[in-house]
Amino acid sequence: MIVDISKKILIVGLGLLGGSYARALKRFGFHISAITKEQSSIDYAIREQIIDEGSTTLDERIIGDADLVVFALYPKIFVEWIAQNQGLLKSGALITDVTGVKGSIVYKIQDMLRSDVEFIAAHPMAGREVSGVENSTDKIFAGANYIVTPTEKNTPEAIETCLELGKLLGFSNVATLSPEDHDEMIGFLSQLTHCIAITLMTCNDKEDMEKFTGDSFRDLTRIARINDLMWSELFVANKAALLEQMDLFMDKFNELKTMLETEDIDGMRAMMRHSTERRTLFDKK
Amino acid sequence: MIVDISKKILIVGLGLLGGSYARALKRFGFHISAITKEQSSIDYAIREQIIDEGSTTLDERIIGDADLVVFALYPKIFVEWIAQNQGLLKSGALITDVTGVKGSIVYKIQDMLRSDVEFIAAHPMAGREVSGVENSTDKIFAGANYIVTPTEKNTPEAIETCLELGKLLGFSNVATLSPEDHDEMIGFLSQLTHCIAITLMTCNDKEDMEKFTGDSFRDLTRIARINDLMWSELFVANKAALLEQMDLFMDKFNELKTMLETEDIDGMRAMMRHSTERRTLFDKK
Repeated sequence: MIVDISKKILIVGLGLLGGSYARALKRFGFHISAITKEQSSIDYAIREQIIDEGSTTLDERIIGDADLVVFALYPKIFVEWIAQNQGLLKSGALITDVTGVKGSIVYKIQDMLRSDVEFIAAHPMAGREVSGVENSTDKIFAGANYIVTPTEKNTPEAIETCLELGKLLGFSNVATLSPEDHDEMIGFLSQLTHCIAITLMTCNDKEDMEKFTGDSFRDLTRIARINDLMWSELFVANKAALLEQMDLFMDKFNELKTMLETEDIDGMRAMMRHSTERRTLFDKK
Repeated sequence: MIVDISKKILIVGLGLLGGSYARALKRFGFHISAITKEQSSIDYAIREQIIDEGSTTLDERIIGDADLVVFALYPKIFVEWIAQNQGLLKSGALITDVTGVKGSIVYKIQDMLRSDVEFIAAHPMAGREVSGVENSTDKIFAGANYIVTPTEKNTPEAIETCLELGKLLGFSNVATLSPEDHDEMIGFLSQLTHCIAITLMTCNDKEDMEKFTGDSFRDLTRIARINDLMWSELFVANKAALLEQMDLFMDKFNELKTMLETEDIDGMRAMMRHSTERRTLFDKK
């Protein structure tokens, strides 16, 4: 085990994800500290015994003590934090993150970072429809994916440590992808699906539709209830990859529309059989 | 009660829906007969005591005896059946259907039908991902909508009877809509959602995506496993209304794409807030 329990872990941003990290890691006996905006989050986490100490200010001792720092912040704030405060990090510290986009973040951080601190990026693909440390739970990691996105600048040891962190947290699938492959995958599986859901939810405001709604429409719009601050930022942070996925979707949707216009039954049936067959791959194992 | 239990009910097409009708109605003590393609379906239904008699041929006595006939056939076959065999129906019989589109069917049937037989159209919005009388169950009606779509040609008594049938079957919500409003509603809530699901499922065939799939993508593609024969026919039968809904969706999707291209964060956030707010209307009550 590379992550030994004498290491001190600092979580910056004690919200739903940061809190869930603290909860999962505390059980192994790590010393956990937190830096976050609200005193109430610190108070809650200390009362719940999921952190040992915390501060709402840039406490130099807490930050300087940490061997491993997890940044659980929105992308822009994460980049700003490093730009302004990286001088406070311990020499030899390893830092990681939870950001849902990689290409636009990883290289930026690695380029600006001190040479005696290493950043290994990760994306824990877990969440809930509620936020805040009070809703944190490490149950969200079971059954979920944890993706590490190393670059040429990363050491094998840092990659190994980050993969081990994913396993300690309780993720069912721990894997590595390049930042570019990660962003394409996320652009398609997560961001495009959210674009579709919010479009479907807002494209027809006719009254009384809800009276006749069945499970199909409800399934396609479950994620149309969306955190506008976070997702608009994530969309822009993955702009090129997401636009590409949106174009793929529109091209195929237009194909279907043309088949309907020309009543090309054979063409539509072939598309539906392709869809039915491919869906089997995506069943929960 | 207008539908009295001395009335004989014939079900034409003893599949999943026809079988579920038989199962629900038999409990009230009606005499139920069936005409269907496969002898094995008849045998099963008699063994299960959900029908009293049945035939795989156009049995003149069975058809001529029926006071109420439920056509549980695909749209085209239903129209053909009436064109060819309506002479066998009893004078004064009431006929109804289960067809998922209305405008292109209702007027056609009413125009060609004998004047001493009345057709009152209905759409039971219930189904399963499996087919056949062997999978029939009246549990699919609980929590579901039953829509009657009368025209000027219908008598108040026939409309009342059809509404009562929906209640006897166990539907939670029994309502009337014009054929045109029905088709718009179905075009949006059901057909457009299926178009989106099969498009998403087939627009990017990159390998290994399934390894990273989460619940969002699975939810949006649950209905991408689709009966190609039935749905291609339903799409064409509702072509004009569905094309209109596809255009509404594409216009909104293009709006979102433009906002992303221009990094119009405020515009995206406003759309997301609209989406979040509107989704609340569609929660299961």
